[in-house]
Amino acid sequence: MSKPTIPKGTRDFGPRAMARRHWVFSVIRNVFEKHGFLPVNTPSFENLQTLTGKYGEEGDKLIFKILNNGDYLSKADDSALNAKDSKALTPSISKKALRYDLTVPFARFVVMNRNDLTFPFRRYQIQPVWRGDRPGKGRYQEFTQCDADIIGSTSSLCELDLVQVFYEALTGLNVPGFTIHVNDRRVLNAVAKSLGVTPDKMTDFTVAIDKYDKVGLEGVVLELKNRGFETQVGEGVCKLFEANSTGTNNDVISYVRDLINGDVDGVIGLDDMVVLLERASQDGIVEPDIRFDAMLARGLDYYTGAIFEVTVKDSPVGSICGGGRYDDLTGIFGWKGMSGVGISFGADRIEDVLEHFDKFPKSLNKTTDILVTHTDAGDVNAELILVTSLRKSGLTTELYPDPAKLKKQIKYADDRSIPFVVMFTPESRDIGSAILKKMDSGEQWELAVSEIAEKIKNL
Amino acid sequence: MSKPTIPKGTRDFGPRAMARRHWVFSVIRNVFEKHGFLPVNTPSFENLQTLTGKYGEEGDKLIFKILNNGDYLSKADDSALNAKDSKALTPSISKKALRYDLTVPFARFVVMNRNDLTFPFRRYQIQPVWRGDRPGKGRYQEFTQCDADIIGSTSSLCELDLVQVFYEALTGLNVPGFTIHVNDRRVLNAVAKSLGVTPDKMTDFTVAIDKYDKVGLEGVVLELKNRGFETQVGEGVCKLFEANSTGTNNDVISYVRDLINGDVDGVIGLDDMVVLLERASQDGIVEPDIRFDAMLARGLDYYTGAIFEVTVKDSPVGSICGGGRYDDLTGIFGWKGMSGVGISFGADRIEDVLEHFDKFPKSLNKTTDILVTHTDAGDVNAELILVTSLRKSGLTTELYPDPAKLKKQIKYADDRSIPFVVMFTPESRDIGSAILKKMDSGEQWELAVSEIAEKIKNL
Repeated sequence: MSKPTIPKGTRDFGPRAMARRHWVFSVIRNVFEKHGFLPVNTPSFENLQTLTGKYGEEGDKLIFKILNNGDYLSKADDSALNAKDSKALTPSISKKALRYDLTVPFARFVVMNRNDLTFPFRRYQIQPVWRGDRPGKGRYQEFTQCDADIIGSTSSLCELDLVQVFYEALTGLNVPGFTIHVNDRRVLNAVAKSLGVTPDKMTDFTVAIDKYDKVGLEGVVLELKNRGFETQVGEGVCKLFEANSTGTNNDVISYVRDLINGDVDGVIGLDDMVVLLERASQDGIVEPDIRFDAMLARGLDYYTGAIFEVTVKDSPVGSICGGGRYDDLTGIFGWKGMSGVGISFGADRIEDVLEHFDKFPKSLNKTTDILVTHTDAGDVNAELILVTSLRKSGLTTELYPDPAKLKKQIKYADDRSIPFVVMFTPESRDIGSAILKKMDSGEQWELAVSEIAEKIKNL
Repeated sequence: MSKPTIPKGTRDFGPRAMARRHWVFSVIRNVFEKHGFLPVNTPSFENLQTLTGKYGEEGDKLIFKILNNGDYLSKADDSALNAKDSKALTPSISKKALRYDLTVPFARFVVMNRNDLTFPFRRYQIQPVWRGDRPGKGRYQEFTQCDADIIGSTSSLCELDLVQVFYEALTGLNVPGFTIHVNDRRVLNAVAKSLGVTPDKMTDFTVAIDKYDKVGLEGVVLELKNRGFETQVGEGVCKLFEANSTGTNNDVISYVRDLINGDVDGVIGLDDMVVLLERASQDGIVEPDIRFDAMLARGLDYYTGAIFEVTVKDSPVGSICGGGRYDDLTGIFGWKGMSGVGISFGADRIEDVLEHFDKFPKSLNKTTDILVTHTDAGDVNAELILVTSLRKSGLTTELYPDPAKLKKQIKYADDRSIPFVVMFTPESRDIGSAILKKMDSGEQWELAVSEIAEKIKNL
């Protein structure tokens, strides 16, 4: 067969990349657990109907559907088949689909397990998700999200908790120059209203603002015009942008407070933001690490209160985290009125950032501690006993499996960056000793077998 | 929408199940790493052609195919569509499929990365796989395999290494009454030959023997008859079974040595088994923990040397591990002659076994250490400072987010099995102290805020 490949937008992770991934996941998991979040996993595929209609029309297109097994055409929708209508045919030949995010499966989990859970329920979930997006810089078809949500409380202390999680995890990961952007949908709504946006055009407005990262300010203005907004809306956005990007958090808040002119919900949202920023600052989380960002919109429709996004200065990829408060996530599965707030770390983009800025800890490159060589296929007893005792003393140990030339075995240790090699000679074997070689310096010692582990630990 | 469900054969994992899974994975991973195996991950989906034709016709049917995104019917094979031929249509509407095991993707990985790898290459991989099997006891459509392979060496020391990994991991996991069954395909071939099986019927013979677990000895005899074997084959298998199930390892080896009557490859395989068992016993791995099992066949075609399977006495599920040597796995991707040997732990079945025998460590039920209550939404400064300092001292701490009645907050701690609750009273707040309550005994102490972490650690 021809040279094998992997699907576009997917990646293999070799040993070096895996050590980094384990580290990133473990730092994030430790922070989640320190804050009392409990782990949950959901299946990789859900019933198709659980996912469709939850991510907007664009999202639905990007969901990977799984073909029914067996003679799937025998139950296919004949009229769709005859019309060659792919979209209409899909539900009759595909019952399952791959997870698109962790939030909808979590809502489904909460509804199915409501009687066994203690509320407020704090869960974390670290699992891959899949999207049929066009692959690009920092955009993969398979990537891993690390989510934390608190469901069943409307208290703004939950938002504070999550801001602390952002800060502790990103600091622990050595992410350089990160900013936690915060805003509130109620504030955004009031701002839009003050610029003359009517409620029915709010989604259009949000989508346009949300494109700022990709198309810049001029692009947003054009987008607003194309979506039929009056010129004054674009002008208002430009002024807001100017205030937003030059002032301190307090300046921006004052500007927005003037702008929204007493709008009841807007003022509540803005006051929540003020308290959040104040409490965060008491915990040492201050600008520019956290910014009130009046231009932050977040695309997803289901957010109703605070919204979050984390960016990195001069980063090669887009935002690395997001989140927000949703007042009725479980409503889509028939359980109304459960408010919650959640955040998500994009582990793959965080890895891209750490790689770009060379911020991974050097200690992650650790490999096997010791290679034991052997040159006589018939008699490896001494070697086997030594290997077992080294492992028992906590040292990662390999026995080279073939009685190859010693030079070849040493080269293997070198290629693998294994720091120590232990060899028996016919003479040393007889008196129960062996040669320990330190690879970087080339130093050698002849030691009693029982002394080797101790010596290596001292070195 | 109606009550949500999850697809058959899949499971949600709540906090308790997740703590167990983390533990199982970490025990296995630690043993892999102790033996110098390096981690690799591959994408969840592969190109369809990478997977098809590798698992036999039955396997192909169980592979989950992913429907192409967009207007997939526009590129569908019209003749297959008109004939309503599902099997013929699939390649034109599905380019990708979910991973069916970890071995074929690993072979693909090795071929694609051959220039960057150091051989012999030892890799481990812990990832879910998916199969459209009929769900049942211990049989899931999504389950996690933990694989370790050594590729690029023909030395039987590799087999020993993997037997040690089996033993150390299963012992570390407290799996009760496990047996590592070992055999060799060369021995099995020689045994079959001695019973009159011709080489062209070898796969039929292997498949029939392999069904022993499911259908018992009578079932195997019937299966052999149905597949057209002479009566003497069934009779020979019955005698072999008798010897195999009553004798010691040495007895069975002697019986088989007589049976195969000097068959060259068979004797080489049998001698390898003898050395493997001897070396394992020097490491303390002896029967009944390890058994030479002349009836062990393993269904997969690609095995050519040693084969392994692990079962558990009185287990509610089938085998929990498997593996073997393959002489030409990468040949399917155009790189001939790379010999390797690998094993796989079925993490989900291991969990089923530990659950059944109640063998999970009790310490896994640990949850949040401390709940800090609060009753005044306006003034939570003292609480917030305390929470941060407790977390910094290494204690998992939650602040109850709502200013609910104290009774409700205490009930939450109780439901969550949180062992300590800390509360401020108006008086204690003024003098910088708080009340620490130990939940199981009901004891309470009033302590300076700075003493609380220390007190809890002492308790």
